[in-house]
Amino acid sequence: MARIVMKFGGTSVADIDRIRNVARHVKREVDNGHEVAVVVSAMSGKTNELVGWTREASPMHDAREYDVVVSSGEQVTSGLLAITLQSMGVNARSWQGWQIPIRTSGAHGAARIEDIDGSDLVRRFGEGQVAVIAGFQGIGPDNRVATLGRGGSDTSAVAIAAGVNADRCDIYTDVDGVYTTDPRVEPKARRLSKIAFEEMLEMASLGAKVLQVRSVELAMVHKVRMFVRSSFEDPDAEGMGDFDNPPGTLICDEDEILEQEVVTGIAYSKDEAQISLRRLSDSPGVSAAIFGPLSDEYINVDMIVQNISEDGTHTDMTFTLPSGDVDKALGVLEKEKQNIGFDVVQSETGLVKVSVIGIGMRSHAGVAATAFKAMAEKGINIKAITTSEIKISILIDSEYAELAVRTLHSVYELD
Amino acid sequence: MARIVMKFGGTSVADIDRIRNVARHVKREVDNGHEVAVVVSAMSGKTNELVGWTREASPMHDAREYDVVVSSGEQVTSGLLAITLQSMGVNARSWQGWQIPIRTSGAHGAARIEDIDGSDLVRRFGEGQVAVIAGFQGIGPDNRVATLGRGGSDTSAVAIAAGVNADRCDIYTDVDGVYTTDPRVEPKARRLSKIAFEEMLEMASLGAKVLQVRSVELAMVHKVRMFVRSSFEDPDAEGMGDFDNPPGTLICDEDEILEQEVVTGIAYSKDEAQISLRRLSDSPGVSAAIFGPLSDEYINVDMIVQNISEDGTHTDMTFTLPSGDVDKALGVLEKEKQNIGFDVVQSETGLVKVSVIGIGMRSHAGVAATAFKAMAEKGINIKAITTSEIKISILIDSEYAELAVRTLHSVYELD
Repeated sequence: MARIVMKFGGTSVADIDRIRNVARHVKREVDNGHEVAVVVSAMSGKTNELVGWTREASPMHDAREYDVVVSSGEQVTSGLLAITLQSMGVNARSWQGWQIPIRTSGAHGAARIEDIDGSDLVRRFGEGQVAVIAGFQGIGPDNRVATLGRGGSDTSAVAIAAGVNADRCDIYTDVDGVYTTDPRVEPKARRLSKIAFEEMLEMASLGAKVLQVRSVELAMVHKVRMFVRSSFEDPDAEGMGDFDNPPGTLICDEDEILEQEVVTGIAYSKDEAQISLRRLSDSPGVSAAIFGPLSDEYINVDMIVQNISEDGTHTDMTFTLPSGDVDKALGVLEKEKQNIGFDVVQSETGLVKVSVIGIGMRSHAGVAATAFKAMAEKGINIKAITTSEIKISILIDSEYAELAVRTLHSVYELD
Repeated sequence: MARIVMKFGGTSVADIDRIRNVARHVKREVDNGHEVAVVVSAMSGKTNELVGWTREASPMHDAREYDVVVSSGEQVTSGLLAITLQSMGVNARSWQGWQIPIRTSGAHGAARIEDIDGSDLVRRFGEGQVAVIAGFQGIGPDNRVATLGRGGSDTSAVAIAAGVNADRCDIYTDVDGVYTTDPRVEPKARRLSKIAFEEMLEMASLGAKVLQVRSVELAMVHKVRMFVRSSFEDPDAEGMGDFDNPPGTLICDEDEILEQEVVTGIAYSKDEAQISLRRLSDSPGVSAAIFGPLSDEYINVDMIVQNISEDGTHTDMTFTLPSGDVDKALGVLEKEKQNIGFDVVQSETGLVKVSVIGIGMRSHAGVAATAFKAMAEKGINIKAITTSEIKISILIDSEYAELAVRTLHSVYELD
């Protein structure tokens, strides 16, 4: 017997038929003798409808009232799933954030979970009851509903798994696991059976949109084992009820992964742009003069490359950012030109960042060299490079994106 | 300065434009220096959508989960109205039943309000804040959301008015007051400026669908002055902000009505049916034998007429009920025939009950005789009669309904 938290997103609960399918997944685990808590999102489309109404009421609205309106979506799903489970003979009840309670910070609309009292839930597990919990919401210090921000249901699920000390947090979604790369780009992509938290964090933040980054961070801190699997598969298909080895991908501590591959996966993110400042005065405080004002305007700068100064007085600085932010960034830089002190500014959009990720590369030399050599052989020009302990990222023209992903997938033997 | 509870139903908050109109009504009262609490229903159509989903999930569902789903409708409206008021510069916040709290009985789906702690609301009135309260809901002894049953928002409003000791509870609806009779039947119908609680109760339960009967009962017990007025009128039209004499109908204690008319109004209810049991044994317990089993099947019997026995051993019994319940009632009676002991049963549908209502008739003789004489002059056959202290009801064929209503409206000088 295990204790499992099961999380289902909006497309998995889009209508009553799909909710019934979700209930069959839950019933399977209950029938296998497990203790189960289920976390649900709003029915697909509902959150957008609710958000639309708040905007229509007033473009500048009180986040506390936004939360009152928007949290109703998950509330509805929790009640409907509880009803459906009961109709299948499963003992179930719904829980709202304020009932458990799930205590959050006061940052309405983007609250952080601070504390979950799992004692009531655990007591009810003992009575054989399934908890159906509205995701994405908790209760703030002002005793009002606070939402966690978009995609917050993954985070709810992990936090609840930590709160009730669950053996695993199963994230049911519209894909059946985490792949070595995007299967639409490289059909030879393989589903990973296990991936370490750190690797998943890099994959998630680099555009593999399977999981919310926040939820993986939280899982890593609390050592909650997450499992990505498909909600659209037949709940009673062979192997689905096998607790130790179901179809999907386990996200876990690296200690749990015995034979660590050097490279786990290739991620990419589109719509990158770069901005270069030429003949920048090479003096202390110049980086702060550039990136301070950009940050004040909420422009998210990613890779930063500074050349060594040739003459000791001037240098070049290049950084990347989302294409959509280029115009805003150029405006900021123009305004700060006097203060920063540079000659010309150049920009380029339509770039792609491709990343090679793997915990194993920590202990292996030459991983980066392999990538550079492969790119050179295919004639792909690398515009910028950044590396971390477990990741190598290169910036290239977007027309080479697929070729680069497939080439790297092959040279690191992920096929 | 007064303290006012304002209640708006589903059609008044059907979309953001209408919510904006509601906000203007609220702002008018705030600008006039009043302390205001607003009670809102779900946006028109939303409750039906939510109820539909619970039925689709399972025809037999847990009322506690039904409440979780259905109460979300009022939650959404409360947040949206708070946002809209804020955008107009009015200090406002939303309240859910569990936050105030509004304590109810444990009868989920049809709960009764047991206690309202108005202290938080009153404190905030002092700070100039408008309370926007989700109607129709409270929190049960199990710490879960409990709804009051359909139309419960009127009841919420009256209960809150009692809880905060309001000067008046204004019910904004799609009609502009209570009339002497249905204006669609008698164009000469006049709007009443005042009506006593007891009279309104008879009007409401007899088919004048302006207010929920429960809310009027509650208002009578707690001496909450209710005021029926239109939400569709221009919020800033002349007289709308006149606290002492706005357009509409005041429902109040009879002491407040100085010159009581003998007859206040004529109500009618359609789709009535009658069932007669012939040659019933005239012995103690026979009424219980008939009406006990009917009540067990939730059949709502209204008028009951028993003739004096002619021979001391047998009698006839006639009663009325909604047409839709006739088949069910006949089935019950057939099953109980042995036990009750009667000769034949006869039934007739397509009848109408017309009622003359007025507190003044307590102290006036001959009110009933006037009605019977008027019916006789028009050749309308009366099938059954019941009377109470403040009401005379007659059962007639439905084809005479309009004629009867107009005739009575005229003979009691209501034109």
